[in-house]
Amino acid sequence: MNQFWTETVRRLSPYVPGEQRHGDDIVKLNTNENPWPPSAKVLAAITAVDGDALRRYPDPESTGLCTVLAKHHRLESEQVFVGNGSDEILALAFLAYFTDGQGLQYPAISYSFYPVYCDLYGIEKRPVEMGDQFLLELEKFKVNQGGIVFPNPNAPTSRAVSRANIESLLRRHTQQVVLVDEAYADFGAESVIPMINDYPNLLVCHTFSKGRSLAGLRLGVAYGDAGLIEGLRRVKNSFNSYPVDALAQQAGIASIQDNDYYQQTVAKIIATREWLVTELEQRQFSVLPSAANFIFVSPSGSALELFNRLNKAAILVRYWPDSPIDQWLRISIGTEADMQRLLKVVDDEPG
Amino acid sequence: MNQFWTETVRRLSPYVPGEQRHGDDIVKLNTNENPWPPSAKVLAAITAVDGDALRRYPDPESTGLCTVLAKHHRLESEQVFVGNGSDEILALAFLAYFTDGQGLQYPAISYSFYPVYCDLYGIEKRPVEMGDQFLLELEKFKVNQGGIVFPNPNAPTSRAVSRANIESLLRRHTQQVVLVDEAYADFGAESVIPMINDYPNLLVCHTFSKGRSLAGLRLGVAYGDAGLIEGLRRVKNSFNSYPVDALAQQAGIASIQDNDYYQQTVAKIIATREWLVTELEQRQFSVLPSAANFIFVSPSGSALELFNRLNKAAILVRYWPDSPIDQWLRISIGTEADMQRLLKVVDDEPG
Repeated sequence: MNQFWTETVRRLSPYVPGEQRHGDDIVKLNTNENPWPPSAKVLAAITAVDGDALRRYPDPESTGLCTVLAKHHRLESEQVFVGNGSDEILALAFLAYFTDGQGLQYPAISYSFYPVYCDLYGIEKRPVEMGDQFLLELEKFKVNQGGIVFPNPNAPTSRAVSRANIESLLRRHTQQVVLVDEAYADFGAESVIPMINDYPNLLVCHTFSKGRSLAGLRLGVAYGDAGLIEGLRRVKNSFNSYPVDALAQQAGIASIQDNDYYQQTVAKIIATREWLVTELEQRQFSVLPSAANFIFVSPSGSALELFNRLNKAAILVRYWPDSPIDQWLRISIGTEADMQRLLKVVDDEPG
Repeated sequence: MNQFWTETVRRLSPYVPGEQRHGDDIVKLNTNENPWPPSAKVLAAITAVDGDALRRYPDPESTGLCTVLAKHHRLESEQVFVGNGSDEILALAFLAYFTDGQGLQYPAISYSFYPVYCDLYGIEKRPVEMGDQFLLELEKFKVNQGGIVFPNPNAPTSRAVSRANIESLLRRHTQQVVLVDEAYADFGAESVIPMINDYPNLLVCHTFSKGRSLAGLRLGVAYGDAGLIEGLRRVKNSFNSYPVDALAQQAGIASIQDNDYYQQTVAKIIATREWLVTELEQRQFSVLPSAANFIFVSPSGSALELFNRLNKAAILVRYWPDSPIDQWLRISIGTEADMQRLLKVVDDEPG
């Protein structure tokens, strides 16, 4: 504690990201990174950026990238907003749309950054209890109890809800923003981007960090009604005019343009996931149905014991000691070789 | 206006950056960019980053870059904080240190983002009147009238205050944070970084955008007491865990390591500035004494007329129509060839 910290700083409990341990022998399955590198065309686009582009400010509105993304999703550019990772977009969106004094509803088991943003801005937290097997039951979200945010598929539970289910929510919940965080939607969930023209309170968040293998570059996108997007731009231009650097803008464009490569890597990850799920179920693990690039599993023995055993073998997965998820592990999908190493440790006797 | 915007969004008057018009024939002297490209070693560091580094999250705390910067300034790493441009650092610092309900003092003629941050966070604005010729008179800042922020040298006026002058302020003003924004200090002001160990409320902000030719990459730094820096980290980790991408971290390290190149380009800019000042004074311009990579000048005729004439000749400079600076132009220092083109338009008859 420091004498100059304001109340705001004192009340914070900052987000704790997964450990960033690196090394040749480490299998890193704890932050849902893509095991495959980005497209060669992305690397070429980065190398093509010259000193003249670096000495100048980047386009503050990332116009070129927004245009390419809009075309990709059959939207208008003014329905697209680009930020420094989807976390920055969430941070700006919470400030723009959830500081109305009415609180925020989000799943009780979900992305742990949501309550952190609430603390930062003094938003009342209204976690909504999960159903059986951590099912996200959208009918539990109440009208006029504040805005709504949830990931689809949810993290860390990996479960997705259907587009029809989200549309029912949007038909009911028309007075406040509904933010659908589709960070992991590439791997099996139905995107609600096609519904943006029908629901002016729907905001959808994407990232280049997962399906597009660009976590190192910090690139996130929001899609929504032009009015909602304009609100994000106003907050952005009151916080940081140039959040997305020149290299990230060019890399993002190249990634969207090489969509075949992206689809191939996503397909490989899904295939590895399905195979791993079968393997783990044969070993008496409970595995929730996953639409993400990670799985949420409960071993027949102690989750903490397995977490420690994997850690000792240089295999990093994510474990939260908090009930009711203290018997579960979140495992990112790596290459098949990564998964074989994981299974080998699982098959070793504890102790 | 959109029905879903909160009061926060409605009350904003976002910052308006200088125009980002590009083209082969444009001489861009309106956003204080460096006319020289970054060091070849910076470009090499960017090219060396591979797909494996891009698919992974970057180090959330930019440890390597902070260590290099700490060594460069003879500080400890925990006295250094890196962000996505110095604007992001200002945005985080305002939230961490100026939202205590006591308001904020800043020069009445200064960086126009300061009042924008105040509006964003609801901080009471206390602009402090300038002295003669836009002199920044630090003795006008009051004790117990809230925190203090000022650029040194000031923007857009280009004038610097001395280290001794700032030390007097710090001796008096001990209960709230004093943020010295040294974005342009490379070009002639005395940095107060050597005083950080003596004043626990002193926060100093730097950028890689000006002297280090990396505006396109978005890299800013804050230096201060470890407690102040820890406050920034807490806010950052409640806003966006990974604000600085893998390429920017490596480029930043390479830039600091190639300090000779940086010193050479800064020296060239200062030489061009001094020559241009002489040329303009011979043409009856009032020119304020500049310690920056721009000059603040008042032509003998109308500033707006000259601004328009330059604009028509594809030479962009910055003009604000607001009194008392409506007879002044801010001109970034370009190459000598850029400045020759500017002088040619100046010498043309109006009309």
